[in-house]
Amino acid sequence: MEEIRDKCGVFGIYGVRNAGALTYLGLYALQHRGQESCGIISANNGGFHSRMGMGLVNEVFSSAEDINSLKGRSAIGHNRYSTTGSSSPENIQPLVMNYSRGYLAIGHNGNLTNYRQVKRELEKAGSILRTSSDTEVILHLLARSKKERIEQALAESLKKIVGAFSLVLLTPRQLVAARDPAGVRPLAIGQRRSSWVVASETCAFDIIGAKYVRDVEPGEIIVIDQRGLHSYPGMLKKSPHAFCIFELIYFSRPDSKIYGTNVDKVRRRLGRALAKEHPVEADIIISVPDSSNTAALGFSEESGIPYDIGLIRNHYVGRTFIRPEQKIRDLDVKIKFNIVKGVVKNKRVVVVDDSLVRGTTSKKLVKMLREAGAKEVHLRLSSPPIVSPCFYGIDMPTKSELIASHKSVEAIRRYLGADSIGYLSLNRMLEMPSLPKESFCHACFSGRYPIDISRRARLAL
Amino acid sequence: MEEIRDKCGVFGIYGVRNAGALTYLGLYALQHRGQESCGIISANNGGFHSRMGMGLVNEVFSSAEDINSLKGRSAIGHNRYSTTGSSSPENIQPLVMNYSRGYLAIGHNGNLTNYRQVKRELEKAGSILRTSSDTEVILHLLARSKKERIEQALAESLKKIVGAFSLVLLTPRQLVAARDPAGVRPLAIGQRRSSWVVASETCAFDIIGAKYVRDVEPGEIIVIDQRGLHSYPGMLKKSPHAFCIFELIYFSRPDSKIYGTNVDKVRRRLGRALAKEHPVEADIIISVPDSSNTAALGFSEESGIPYDIGLIRNHYVGRTFIRPEQKIRDLDVKIKFNIVKGVVKNKRVVVVDDSLVRGTTSKKLVKMLREAGAKEVHLRLSSPPIVSPCFYGIDMPTKSELIASHKSVEAIRRYLGADSIGYLSLNRMLEMPSLPKESFCHACFSGRYPIDISRRARLAL
Amino acid sequence: MEEIRDKCGVFGIYGVRNAGALTYLGLYALQHRGQESCGIISANNGGFHSRMGMGLVNEVFSSAEDINSLKGRSAIGHNRYSTTGSSSPENIQPLVMNYSRGYLAIGHNGNLTNYRQVKRELEKAGSILRTSSDTEVILHLLARSKKERIEQALAESLKKIVGAFSLVLLTPRQLVAARDPAGVRPLAIGQRRSSWVVASETCAFDIIGAKYVRDVEPGEIIVIDQRGLHSYPGMLKKSPHAFCIFELIYFSRPDSKIYGTNVDKVRRRLGRALAKEHPVEADIIISVPDSSNTAALGFSEESGIPYDIGLIRNHYVGRTFIRPEQKIRDLDVKIKFNIVKGVVKNKRVVVVDDSLVRGTTSKKLVKMLREAGAKEVHLRLSSPPIVSPCFYGIDMPTKSELIASHKSVEAIRRYLGADSIGYLSLNRMLEMPSLPKESFCHACFSGRYPIDISRRARLAL
Amino acid sequence: MEEIRDKCGVFGIYGVRNAGALTYLGLYALQHRGQESCGIISANNGGFHSRMGMGLVNEVFSSAEDINSLKGRSAIGHNRYSTTGSSSPENIQPLVMNYSRGYLAIGHNGNLTNYRQVKRELEKAGSILRTSSDTEVILHLLARSKKERIEQALAESLKKIVGAFSLVLLTPRQLVAARDPAGVRPLAIGQRRSSWVVASETCAFDIIGAKYVRDVEPGEIIVIDQRGLHSYPGMLKKSPHAFCIFELIYFSRPDSKIYGTNVDKVRRRLGRALAKEHPVEADIIISVPDSSNTAALGFSEESGIPYDIGLIRNHYVGRTFIRPEQKIRDLDVKIKFNIVKGVVKNKRVVVVDDSLVRGTTSKKLVKMLREAGAKEVHLRLSSPPIVSPCFYGIDMPTKSELIASHKSVEAIRRYLGADSIGYLSLNRMLEMPSLPKESFCHACFSGRYPIDISRRARLAL
Repeated sequence: MEEIRDKCGVFGIYGVRNAGALTYLGLYALQHRGQESCGIISANNGGFHSRMGMGLVNEVFSSAEDINSLKGRSAIGHNRYSTTGSSSPENIQPLVMNYSRGYLAIGHNGNLTNYRQVKRELEKAGSILRTSSDTEVILHLLARSKKERIEQALAESLKKIVGAFSLVLLTPRQLVAARDPAGVRPLAIGQRRSSWVVASETCAFDIIGAKYVRDVEPGEIIVIDQRGLHSYPGMLKKSPHAFCIFELIYFSRPDSKIYGTNVDKVRRRLGRALAKEHPVEADIIISVPDSSNTAALGFSEESGIPYDIGLIRNHYVGRTFIRPEQKIRDLDVKIKFNIVKGVVKNKRVVVVDDSLVRGTTSKKLVKMLREAGAKEVHLRLSSPPIVSPCFYGIDMPTKSELIASHKSVEAIRRYLGADSIGYLSLNRMLEMPSLPKESFCHACFSGRYPIDISRRARLAL
Repeated sequence: MEEIRDKCGVFGIYGVRNAGALTYLGLYALQHRGQESCGIISANNGGFHSRMGMGLVNEVFSSAEDINSLKGRSAIGHNRYSTTGSSSPENIQPLVMNYSRGYLAIGHNGNLTNYRQVKRELEKAGSILRTSSDTEVILHLLARSKKERIEQALAESLKKIVGAFSLVLLTPRQLVAARDPAGVRPLAIGQRRSSWVVASETCAFDIIGAKYVRDVEPGEIIVIDQRGLHSYPGMLKKSPHAFCIFELIYFSRPDSKIYGTNVDKVRRRLGRALAKEHPVEADIIISVPDSSNTAALGFSEESGIPYDIGLIRNHYVGRTFIRPEQKIRDLDVKIKFNIVKGVVKNKRVVVVDDSLVRGTTSKKLVKMLREAGAKEVHLRLSSPPIVSPCFYGIDMPTKSELIASHKSVEAIRRYLGADSIGYLSLNRMLEMPSLPKESFCHACFSGRYPIDISRRARLAL
Repeated sequence: MEEIRDKCGVFGIYGVRNAGALTYLGLYALQHRGQESCGIISANNGGFHSRMGMGLVNEVFSSAEDINSLKGRSAIGHNRYSTTGSSSPENIQPLVMNYSRGYLAIGHNGNLTNYRQVKRELEKAGSILRTSSDTEVILHLLARSKKERIEQALAESLKKIVGAFSLVLLTPRQLVAARDPAGVRPLAIGQRRSSWVVASETCAFDIIGAKYVRDVEPGEIIVIDQRGLHSYPGMLKKSPHAFCIFELIYFSRPDSKIYGTNVDKVRRRLGRALAKEHPVEADIIISVPDSSNTAALGFSEESGIPYDIGLIRNHYVGRTFIRPEQKIRDLDVKIKFNIVKGVVKNKRVVVVDDSLVRGTTSKKLVKMLREAGAKEVHLRLSSPPIVSPCFYGIDMPTKSELIASHKSVEAIRRYLGADSIGYLSLNRMLEMPSLPKESFCHACFSGRYPIDISRRARLAL
Repeated sequence: MEEIRDKCGVFGIYGVRNAGALTYLGLYALQHRGQESCGIISANNGGFHSRMGMGLVNEVFSSAEDINSLKGRSAIGHNRYSTTGSSSPENIQPLVMNYSRGYLAIGHNGNLTNYRQVKRELEKAGSILRTSSDTEVILHLLARSKKERIEQALAESLKKIVGAFSLVLLTPRQLVAARDPAGVRPLAIGQRRSSWVVASETCAFDIIGAKYVRDVEPGEIIVIDQRGLHSYPGMLKKSPHAFCIFELIYFSRPDSKIYGTNVDKVRRRLGRALAKEHPVEADIIISVPDSSNTAALGFSEESGIPYDIGLIRNHYVGRTFIRPEQKIRDLDVKIKFNIVKGVVKNKRVVVVDDSLVRGTTSKKLVKMLREAGAKEVHLRLSSPPIVSPCFYGIDMPTKSELIASHKSVEAIRRYLGADSIGYLSLNRMLEMPSLPKESFCHACFSGRYPIDISRRARLAL
């Protein structure tokens, strides 16, 4: 109900005329993963073309010229959402460098937990960092590597960093992809006729008519050049898997396949399991559109209570919506949602949402539903209580702002003013995807961090 | 499935601090009625403040300063969509004039069918028109009227024009609203504490916490000043009612009440009636989001076939989306929709849509559904075939571009490649709203135009 | 020394390919007459192309496309400077109307003294004025005229207005020029191969290689069409001539010919006469660049005292120069001028300037010269004391701000801190141009206004 | 007559409130040294404020906010002109880095001749360069230095580079200045109450009311901190002096003092010497404004032939002036200059200019003078023929484009169409400044390069 924003989406393509134009479409399909800035680099005749800026894909690329100038047969692109304070233009990705071996560009989804330490060491050795982005240290490690081959230089560099990373890299002659040994963030490989594609989610393949082939494996480096795709598994340290479960619950698009599984299918199962774990007598099921729609359908199927559309979402809100000074009750919620009064009036309503972060929006929504005439309001969450922030690439509030970190479920219910509340339990949740339970990172629900986090992060917990 | 764009939304408010800020919110709620340009005029100390521009509400008003500069206790606003060729800045509404009686602003939803004739007469008499907007002639008629009182001058002026108009006007001391004698476009009156509001749809009341009172009656002029709301019915020519049925089927938001009826309720009934009129054996019902969602739910309820989410709509498309040169099959559809393959695969699918204009998009969608593995694709339309364009304020293609104007239903089915097709019949459709059948304009479905159209328009039919 | 800004420069051309491009060059040569905004209208195939904006000619026309879009074989252009408060985009000229006879554009240099009265009458009759520019009333008078021929309609309209006007008008088939009966502002006719040109000053002819033919006569209307140039003298009321003498003293470029006389020649004679009327013992003559250079040379020739360059003018100052908060002595003068210390040190310096308005800048300049080591500073003005503001198209401060309106010459000298001061006397000044004394308006020096000024203006004196 | 553009102007100030605002004024006074881009960095509370952009000082700093945001008591600024191809935003100076010792900014006037070699070595060692500006290598050398004190790190770094450099550097606590051992480009020290100032020319001191103290000596490093100004001479390699003579002839403003000498005085002496070396019988002397004015006055004084103003320069030309397609003879010259016909008609005219580069503009000017009626046209240049390009920071055409590199003086005269031509000889020129002849670099006139130029440059000669 409240927004948790993923930090990034990445895309890369090799071996097709107008690679820049296809990357533009890919980024557009991945827009939900980052709305602050975006950029595309294409490789052409040994050099790079580049276009990037603050804003949505259709704002940064607002003329045919913007896209057509990205000439060449390979390209990478990046959508970014950044936390406050570092939303400056120099952090827009892909980052590019011109070093002793020529041009290289990089796009990164994830977060490095030992960033500060690596940065300090690089600076001591005389490197000049120009951004406040953790991604830049990978460039400097690459520039300092003496290894001749890109996969070797990359492996050497990535062994020095800790954290979550799904990377795309571009050189004038190669497209490179890599995924951290735990595989925290998704990264899929696709094929479109004779060209190769990599993307954070498969919905970016659908828009350009590419087919999903497989995921980049955790710890794998992929190099694509004119002789084809080369896989370099096992060059990084080994690690148990730790796929982000939140991608399945909330982030990824329901029409995507990630970790080889259909997001839509998982969400429906989450909704069904939720109905079983927390049944309720009610007249209608409504969802908080759009991310909870599928879970709500699952809840409806399992419970037999009819699904209805009780909330209309306004999609024109944009990044720059101005809250006027005028005092209006619950305006921040009304800007996004309006209640279809005829639907909820005199009804016992189940509201299905995917997760609860601060709780402030839900509280207002419950109140609005009651004012619109709902007889009862039952809140059902298709994931467990969020108790700990993410340090692997998802922007969440601090621990103290997470309502479930310091309130019992009953206290949360009272705070929200709901007639009942039900969270899906951790174990049930982990049973839903068609992967072993042990494959997932669920630190935000359990507080168990599978990858070392920085001292600074630990102290803030 | 294809877009038909309404020409405008209007909003007005009187008697509250920060009237401009509330108008901004009202326009935001009415954004679906016009995305090309918008503007707000507020009245303050005998003068006007004004801000308008090309783009969405949140683009034109992108800083607190933009909104706060609209000082004063009354304001009107306008969202506009215009047809190609006249999308120039001088046509942005509200239009303002400074004439012998001072400042006056006007916002118009509708279309004048005798515009050219009135314009010619005004110019002959020495008036200089500066826009290509039909709304401007109303200003000139007002400027030439000798009547002292605004309602009289307005009545005198409106008697000279023919067509559809829901108007809001602002003077330094009054908010005025008027609706044409047939009541083609909606216009509602609301109240918020001690202030009065008028708006095209009631969803604009919800966002600011105003309550729906009643509609401006067809042929009624309303004047609101510091002594309250004054109604002047019967000053215009009498006419049978001709409420636009398309507002209920497609344009208005489902959470709005228009013509005193819940849009959501009507759409659900349309879906139910459609299921009765054109039953089908199938596994799932999917809608073309978002305008057809409620009709699809109604179809599902009546037929017992489960409702599912088979199409995901990308809401980031924006007004400036660039189609790259790169040839990609069905890109124009893929940009807006992606299919959830797991949902439709091996299923007999009923696609419920609200209307069919050119048919090109639907054809591609049917194909994409089949490629995603749908066993059968049945198209159901919750309105009759569109055979004639609208001349009362809705932007439609010419008659020859309307697929149903020259193809039989069976020919349309073959063209689209659907297994079956079913249109709701005109009579059934007209039975659905809680108003007498005779109240509606259904010229687009029947070709019977209740208000004189221009000679030029007649020739083009 | 202080800036007095003329309100406008006008340009028109007929009968040549790329008329818009030539107009752009003409406006560029006339840039000194108005720097606030500019615009060009070209006539092509019965319609108009238009481009206008706030800023200098090279800012408004900043791409080849801006210029090349102005297709057609005739065009008019306008540079504008406006007084505070009305510098809004809608006042940018040329003004265009689309009226019963088609398109018409107008550019105006001058000022109408009965503007408010004419405006009131037009509004009473139902006209809607959209600008705060006096020029617009001419359009409305034209729109209301029943005369068929443009010269007749224009004569009828111009007979209703009082004031100073040099006009260019454009219709799809004609270029029209007119000058008020007193001929206050200049307007010259030129020829370039088979095409005709009109411009405020002949420097606009030089840049495009056109030759000066003659002036538009006071009270004359000129119509140029494909059959050639047609003169309509005597259609307006008769009036004695009242050529603005200030054009010769300060405004016009020294390389222009206006009123048929070389500006440069007149200024040199003014300098010589000044040297005779107010001789002084000194070591060097310096001018306040650039407008006083020629007068200073004349002073030097007559007096035998060598001319030198003691002040350097910074030409990068631009319209948006920001005065920082930091307190710096005499910054407003230092921004424009720096003293060449080696030139003035230990010298008795004569500073020749063309006129003195408020005196504040001169006071600081005198102080800076002394600080740079000048032994004596003698100020010489090549025009009489300015005692009354202009109401015929020159932007001057109010009477009370004019230093000479309330201070004796000796008091001015003391205020400025100069060792001596000398103004050229009114009679001597009027003897300098090669025209009879009676031909000139010298209201700013004498307070005798040759054309009726408005009641409001009279009260402000 | 043709433009030779200096690459840069630098400014720095320490120890005053609003240091950023004073730097803005300093850059404005130095605008003639670079019009492509500009930037200011101020130091405040251990961090930097920064503002930079493409365009003139008054374009980049167009609001009070732009200037007031540059808080702090020390600042440096830079005006830049760059050669084609590298005019990209990332090259705008001052360049800033955040390295192991914190923030550091640098502004550079000059050109490094061993740039490519140093760059290659840095990249080999793993440095990532992000600009194509030679200045950046100084930052990387500083980042790699192990020396603790800034003057030592800077000396170590500067010993590795060859070429011309006048530098200003800023750290959160220091203002640093340095000049190459040959002293090619000027750099002066000034004082304003308790604050220190450095600038390329003293005209930047005049505008803020600072006093000239002395030059930064060739090879000297200056560090200014809260304990005052510290001089570190002799830390760089020794070298004979090689002051750029072209600064005196053309670049610097006549009101500046550079190399401790008045520019204006030198130019007057050049004019006088030119009159002696190449006397001529003529009626008037005119200059090509504005850079040749003083030399023309000197010529007039020595020859006794009166000085006059025969060319008017249009100062509105701007950086984006568009040449329209329309074919107009000599338009490129007419855009800048117009001839005052009354002055030159039937006269024998001497045109004094400071230098001759390609000769194309002069050729057209001679023709225009003849067409305006000049009986004879004699060209006099106050410097010798330019035969070799500059590699020390002045942007000149290649050798083959320099007319004097391949044409005799008589051939040049014929090409220009002048009646006579006279260049000041190298020896006479070098006698004019009040410094020993041996102090100057005159490579552009003599081809003798006092500092090693790169192999690439040598090959191009």
